[in-house]
Amino acid sequence: MAPPSAIEVEAVTDTSGVTIPDPLSAPIRSNEILGRRKKTDKRQWGVAAPSDTSHFRLKSYEGKPKARRWDHYCSHEAKVRKGNSLKAAAKFLSTPGLISLGGGLPSSEYFPFEELSVKVPVVGHFSEQETKESGVVITAGKHDLANDKSIFDIATAFNYGQGSGAAQLLRYVTEHTELVHSPPYEDWRCTMSIGSTSGLDMALRMLSRPGDMMLSEAYTFSAAVETALPLGVRIAGVPVDAEGLRPDSMDDILSNWDVNVQGARKPHLLYTVPTGQNPTGATQGKARREAIYAVCQKHDIFIIEDEPYYFLQMQPYTGPNAPDIPPPSSHAEFLQSLVPSLLSMDVDGRVMRLDSFSKVISPGSRIGWVTASAQIIEKYGRHADVSTQNPAGMSQLILFKLLDEHWGHAGYLDWLIHIRIQYTSRRDVILQACEKYLPKEIVSWNPPMAGMFHWMQVDFRKHPDYPEKSIETIEEEIFMRVIEHGTLVMRGSWFYANSEDKHDTLFFRATYAAAPAEKIDEGIRRLGEAIRAEFKLEKGAAGENRHANGH
Amino acid sequence: MAPPSAIEVEAVTDTSGVTIPDPLSAPIRSNEILGRRKKTDKRQWGVAAPSDTSHFRLKSYEGKPKARRWDHYCSHEAKVRKGNSLKAAAKFLSTPGLISLGGGLPSSEYFPFEELSVKVPVVGHFSEQETKESGVVITAGKHDLANDKSIFDIATAFNYGQGSGAAQLLRYVTEHTELVHSPPYEDWRCTMSIGSTSGLDMALRMLSRPGDMMLSEAYTFSAAVETALPLGVRIAGVPVDAEGLRPDSMDDILSNWDVNVQGARKPHLLYTVPTGQNPTGATQGKARREAIYAVCQKHDIFIIEDEPYYFLQMQPYTGPNAPDIPPPSSHAEFLQSLVPSLLSMDVDGRVMRLDSFSKVISPGSRIGWVTASAQIIEKYGRHADVSTQNPAGMSQLILFKLLDEHWGHAGYLDWLIHIRIQYTSRRDVILQACEKYLPKEIVSWNPPMAGMFHWMQVDFRKHPDYPEKSIETIEEEIFMRVIEHGTLVMRGSWFYANSEDKHDTLFFRATYAAAPAEKIDEGIRRLGEAIRAEFKLEKGAAGENRHANGH
Repeated sequence: MAPPSAIEVEAVTDTSGVTIPDPLSAPIRSNEILGRRKKTDKRQWGVAAPSDTSHFRLKSYEGKPKARRWDHYCSHEAKVRKGNSLKAAAKFLSTPGLISLGGGLPSSEYFPFEELSVKVPVVGHFSEQETKESGVVITAGKHDLANDKSIFDIATAFNYGQGSGAAQLLRYVTEHTELVHSPPYEDWRCTMSIGSTSGLDMALRMLSRPGDMMLSEAYTFSAAVETALPLGVRIAGVPVDAEGLRPDSMDDILSNWDVNVQGARKPHLLYTVPTGQNPTGATQGKARREAIYAVCQKHDIFIIEDEPYYFLQMQPYTGPNAPDIPPPSSHAEFLQSLVPSLLSMDVDGRVMRLDSFSKVISPGSRIGWVTASAQIIEKYGRHADVSTQNPAGMSQLILFKLLDEHWGHAGYLDWLIHIRIQYTSRRDVILQACEKYLPKEIVSWNPPMAGMFHWMQVDFRKHPDYPEKSIETIEEEIFMRVIEHGTLVMRGSWFYANSEDKHDTLFFRATYAAAPAEKIDEGIRRLGEAIRAEFKLEKGAAGENRHANGH
Repeated sequence: MAPPSAIEVEAVTDTSGVTIPDPLSAPIRSNEILGRRKKTDKRQWGVAAPSDTSHFRLKSYEGKPKARRWDHYCSHEAKVRKGNSLKAAAKFLSTPGLISLGGGLPSSEYFPFEELSVKVPVVGHFSEQETKESGVVITAGKHDLANDKSIFDIATAFNYGQGSGAAQLLRYVTEHTELVHSPPYEDWRCTMSIGSTSGLDMALRMLSRPGDMMLSEAYTFSAAVETALPLGVRIAGVPVDAEGLRPDSMDDILSNWDVNVQGARKPHLLYTVPTGQNPTGATQGKARREAIYAVCQKHDIFIIEDEPYYFLQMQPYTGPNAPDIPPPSSHAEFLQSLVPSLLSMDVDGRVMRLDSFSKVISPGSRIGWVTASAQIIEKYGRHADVSTQNPAGMSQLILFKLLDEHWGHAGYLDWLIHIRIQYTSRRDVILQACEKYLPKEIVSWNPPMAGMFHWMQVDFRKHPDYPEKSIETIEEEIFMRVIEHGTLVMRGSWFYANSEDKHDTLFFRATYAAAPAEKIDEGIRRLGEAIRAEFKLEKGAAGENRHANGH
């Protein structure tokens, strides 16, 4: 397979892409990006070579506003961290004929790998079975860069790198970010992360200090809470509805913030998962996002936009018996079907967006990327240089071969459409099972539009032992009863943003991401059975929900 | 290639290993480990499954003392961090027949990889050329675990994991640690890291607080200083000699610590690189290590033993014209030739040892491991779970296929002997060049016994402009002059543990790890030329060092 991107010319033609509207320049066809790349400084492909993502952008950002400064929110740690002193020497490396006895990098001679290959699907034949049958083997050699076979190889990827990740893959994610989000300010940049879990950890160390409170959805990703608490950062939960975080509630909280009551200064950070939020499954619509952004402007809030599920936006849910909506017929239609990100409306540079390959390629890559203003990205890179360093070069090389050289941008969009349709079908399976098996007078839900999670509210007031037993005890008993019936679902209380707050809701979270369809169906059947038993309802036959003479 | 370790029996025989003395049980042949493995709980091979490294050890540790407690040194962050709440649900996963709609892990169906292959050397034919010619391709399939072909596969490795890393590779590094170091206390454990740079960052966040000072060699790894300073931790440099850190000086510093003078409480942490230290190249001998450990016991110091270069211990240097010493003739001889680690003498459990594959396999794996007492390893894992997570599964799978299934422990020791001989030859090249080209009345050095670095002291008192010019100015001028002559070496002052201390030495660091032999020779020739010019010495012909009528 010839790698078009490895050839530094602008004559690559590709007609598989589809025109994407672009207000600033000629239309972008999604694979044309590879052909429209600027001529680049080849030194950036070398071992541990620095790069600048501003060179990877195709549009002109001249005349766009620069990001606001966020120094006043930066921690002591972030402020005092200097660049690596040894890199001062790196600037001499371009001296012609120079022999470097400087950097302590091992010679690739001692990497015991001659070739790395992966068998992957060809575009349009993405299923596991098709990959087995018609997949192709793509191979990286040890010295492909020196031999002009590719711009990335084992000798380079398997050595040390920059905190930002290698230019080869960094270019791809920067182009992808421009294609999808097109941030509306001049100095946006990207850096790779080792995944969004680490991205959040580093963001909090950069932007908060012990004693702070941070805003988030009232039910939120438990690992986010567990990352924040040990740093002395508590979460102020903002009420949610079917579209997720409520901007009016957020404005209320901020407008009426009382340092003495809360024991913390007024929050300056919002952590939000706008799409397919974990655990609620809620997706903020476009107007909702605009309203949230406006409240953030009003109170000068810096936003951490954590978007692992962005490309798990699904086809609209049509109900149990209606026909499916056909998949997007073009890349443009696909991209236009996605809710615009906060990044795409970020005129102030107040968003730090966390993207990840975990949900759409593989969590085992431990590769994500961060998009924010240059000042934030520079600080992130400095921290990475002395902690996580770059994402594993082994992973970077595999993703580069797949995404850049094999699929290109157009092929990757096709893959994302494939994933969308797959998740749509899984989501439909769980919703149909819920319609069929759950007692609707007890359990209610909104059909998820994105992500991996189905969030079910249980009317604890109808429980025979309420109010003698607390909500928490009822939750515990249902949880255990469901396990007795052979299904594991997660307790809603595990996702409280602040477990010290008073809660008068009861939820369970189920995922449709992992189990096969027949297991999802059976799992929900058992859930219905267990809830009926717990609420002392008559057994519901499949498809009907007879109301027992309960409480 | 049949993977012996994948077969859960104890009948695997292997005679390629060599007897290693073992005071506690029957002799271990280094590949016999694979056969002597205990029958294991197969559930630990599953996706994101927990494991306990104590089960991977072959010896009995009954009756050995337990590690002391280190709670009094732990930071607030480390103390309050709880385990992941969602893992509370994981204990139910072993319920027979349970359908999990719990954890939000993506289905491996959507990992676009059917096979992963690497071409690697067979044991004994390790060179790059031999690997090209006789290397074998080892392959991981997507569902090898379910198909009983291997205990590790794409479906498992490419999904989410535990902060500790996957049991499959964790078992290997635990066995390797036992084989090499055999820690002398009961509750030692291992966890994987994403490399020792991250390991140090996490150790400091766990064991220090802002305002602390930490002991280290007076010249030290600059990234360690740059990791510590933003956390508010300054380094107290301990004087060094040819064997590295001086225990008598360390005792003096601690015995005479004055909080008011130093502006910090008495240190409780030592960061040391005992073998092939960066930048000095010094290696602490056995007696030196024992003396350092004794001082740490006296002052109750916790030790961070950073050992990336441990297996870059080389053959003794015999001088420019003497014949080489033959390589170790057995694994036992090889292991006995290594200076014992601080971990191997750690009766108190006061050592946190950082190991890494970066210098001996590939930095691009971003995989290292940490060995310490269970209390420390548990805290490390909890932090990893909400920050770095596990090392990239793609890297873990590649290393597992190579180290466990292909080479085994014996083959890996053969590889390490290969690396030892390669570095010996590189070290000899730089030393011979230094003998030939450098003016010995100005430049002096100790032959490095390990690592990547050659540390050269320059007698600044003989510089024609001393004392009119400061040491720093002279260092800067020599540095620039060497670049003019076409070589890059690192300035010693970049490695000060504390740049605010007064220094009256001048060093340069050169690495012999990266450049080919002829470039090392030419690089040092240019260095000699530049120093002669700078010190206004006559030009020295190759092989002779004529003393000019200098200052």
